[in-house]
Amino acid sequence: MSADFGITDNSRLERQLDFLVEIDKVKNILRKSRLFDASRFENDAEHSWTISLMAILLKEYADFEVNIEKVLVMLLIHDIVEIDAGDTFLYAEARESAHIEEEKAARRIFGMLDADQRDYFIGVWHEFEARQSNEARFAAVFDRLEPLLQNFLNEGFTWKKNNISCAMVIEKNRQIAEGSPRIWDFVQKLLKIAVQRGYFPEPEA
Amino acid sequence: MSADFGITDNSRLERQLDFLVEIDKVKNILRKSRLFDASRFENDAEHSWTISLMAILLKEYADFEVNIEKVLVMLLIHDIVEIDAGDTFLYAEARESAHIEEEKAARRIFGMLDADQRDYFIGVWHEFEARQSNEARFAAVFDRLEPLLQNFLNEGFTWKKNNISCAMVIEKNRQIAEGSPRIWDFVQKLLKIAVQRGYFPEPEA
Repeated sequence: MSADFGITDNSRLERQLDFLVEIDKVKNILRKSRLFDASRFENDAEHSWTISLMAILLKEYADFEVNIEKVLVMLLIHDIVEIDAGDTFLYAEARESAHIEEEKAARRIFGMLDADQRDYFIGVWHEFEARQSNEARFAAVFDRLEPLLQNFLNEGFTWKKNNISCAMVIEKNRQIAEGSPRIWDFVQKLLKIAVQRGYFPEPEA
Repeated sequence: MSADFGITDNSRLERQLDFLVEIDKVKNILRKSRLFDASRFENDAEHSWTISLMAILLKEYADFEVNIEKVLVMLLIHDIVEIDAGDTFLYAEARESAHIEEEKAARRIFGMLDADQRDYFIGVWHEFEARQSNEARFAAVFDRLEPLLQNFLNEGFTWKKNNISCAMVIEKNRQIAEGSPRIWDFVQKLLKIAVQRGYFPEPEA
């Protein structure tokens, strides 16, 4: 695929811009959570913007050294694979097969770039997915925190719709503590209030 | 305004999250250009995501030292003032009065944060607007390049609609050369092709 910038020298810059046009498709991939104002579902580009800004705004809550530039690269690119693989709900059973699709997607999409940049971006994406480095652990905080805040402000919209209990939310988001114990403390308080306010589905009798 | 996270300790983190909810409004601010696929107008959050990613992808085209983390902070926050001031068209007469509105907006919106972060973000935004530092000059390249590429791929949609000539585009985007002479070379080639293909309005007889 070529975006057809009509310049025939097939330069590195043209390949980079073809990649840029390709990844613009994330703007049409809708997530499961609504915007803070509840008006509509959020797309992947908007999500990536918000969590990148969160990492800047909240960097003081990392309890370890963190290279924010690396965190931002991770957050800005982490959902590009969803162009081919689609958005997989955090609470879905199919996370394992999604990983295989996402790996294929990473090879195709980042593979539009020359080898040096292809390998760099795939490497950063793998690092994010593996959650072993400080940067990946800190980046993951915001990937999880944003939908939690959205669901809180939307009175449990996604939780109710998909029958997600508070225990499931705690189970799936516990990793926030690995990136920021203080933010995890805050989330636990927030979830307690969410329970009080009835933002979770009624347990079946 | 408070996003009402319902925790009564009025902590710094809560103020930061209130700010985060407030700036989410950029997702409802539409720009004058359409997405690369022409399907709809782009909003400010999507624009900020794209140009942040461009700065990472194309950093090799800076002919000087540049702190990419600083560039990313600039690009991620640069349009937040439009929540109050609105999107001003690059070719509009009213750029001067827009600056006054944007300054007020910066004080209100970043003023939701504690003084250290308020001053930091307003400082970064002023630095971006002034285009004197290497980082600001490089950031400005992408703020201008994205709509140029969009209009090229959309066959001059915004140029035709608003009667913008190729000479006006060159005049208003010439500053790209200050951030990246090589990207400006590319843009000039692209504009030549745009003229050949009839992407600009017919000059009045």
